[in-house]
Amino acid sequence: MEIERKFTIKRLPDDVDSFEYHIIEQAYLTDDPVIRVRREDGKYYMTYKGVGGDNTSLAHEEYNLPLTKEAYDFLASKTEGYIIRKKRVLIPYCGHTIELDIFAEPFKPLIIAEVEFASKDEAQSFIPPDWFDEDVTDDSAYRNANLALQHKD
Amino acid sequence: MEIERKFTIKRLPDDVDSFEYHIIEQAYLTDDPVIRVRREDGKYYMTYKGVGGDNTSLAHEEYNLPLTKEAYDFLASKTEGYIIRKKRVLIPYCGHTIELDIFAEPFKPLIIAEVEFASKDEAQSFIPPDWFDEDVTDDSAYRNANLALQHKD
Repeated sequence: MEIERKFTIKRLPDDVDSFEYHIIEQAYLTDDPVIRVRREDGKYYMTYKGVGGDNTSLAHEEYNLPLTKEAYDFLASKTEGYIIRKKRVLIPYCGHTIELDIFAEPFKPLIIAEVEFASKDEAQSFIPPDWFDEDVTDDSAYRNANLALQHKD
Repeated sequence: MEIERKFTIKRLPDDVDSFEYHIIEQAYLTDDPVIRVRREDGKYYMTYKGVGGDNTSLAHEEYNLPLTKEAYDFLASKTEGYIIRKKRVLIPYCGHTIELDIFAEPFKPLIIAEVEFASKDEAQSFIPPDWFDEDVTDDSAYRNANLALQHKD
């Protein structure tokens, strides 16, 4: 069970280039359930998020299953919609890690900040840094699956 | 973690028509890791079996993840090789359930019996009924993934 909140940002923090980051490429086989393939640096995964759940909400069931490069390449070739490419910067903040997703084309200049929590209480009591803008946790337009599959609408 | 043994059979038991059964259709997206989609009667699943493991062996990691009919139909259309269709008869035997898989074309007259166990000890001490033939647990030719994908060899 993953509990997270998602925010747009007003500006990048000044020290954004000083943090660890990963290069992520991901694409979607299906949207309900969400079945996604992802390359993160040199590692490959398939992610499954539970059937029929409200995937825009705070908490959802999630499985991350390792893939070989060959399996990733095959499955990626079967996906629908856009391939999402983004740089994920990991920013420590008040005992949490902000995952700042800086999207490449065709989604540039989109930037989304995600924060994971151990409990719903912790999620609800989180005080965002001043460079965060709106809470878009429940806004389906900011779901990566919807970004990737938007051309289908 | 699933622990099971697999056998060919000498003959069908006389009362084979008296037991509960399911109609199964399944096909494979990838073979390493094994990613399979399955329809069992009116239910749909995707199954993942761990990367790089020896999937012919007694024990393997397995996730069964529910799908909608729409997600199943989409993923099934992306699979490789044959679609496997079989009738699975559930036969109680000495506290276990024998899953007797009676394959339809193009694999007919193939019949394979599988038995699941709670532990490796239980698996190793299992005494098969007299209508079982060879133990093919470690024979990769009897893996459903290999049956489905054999045309690729």
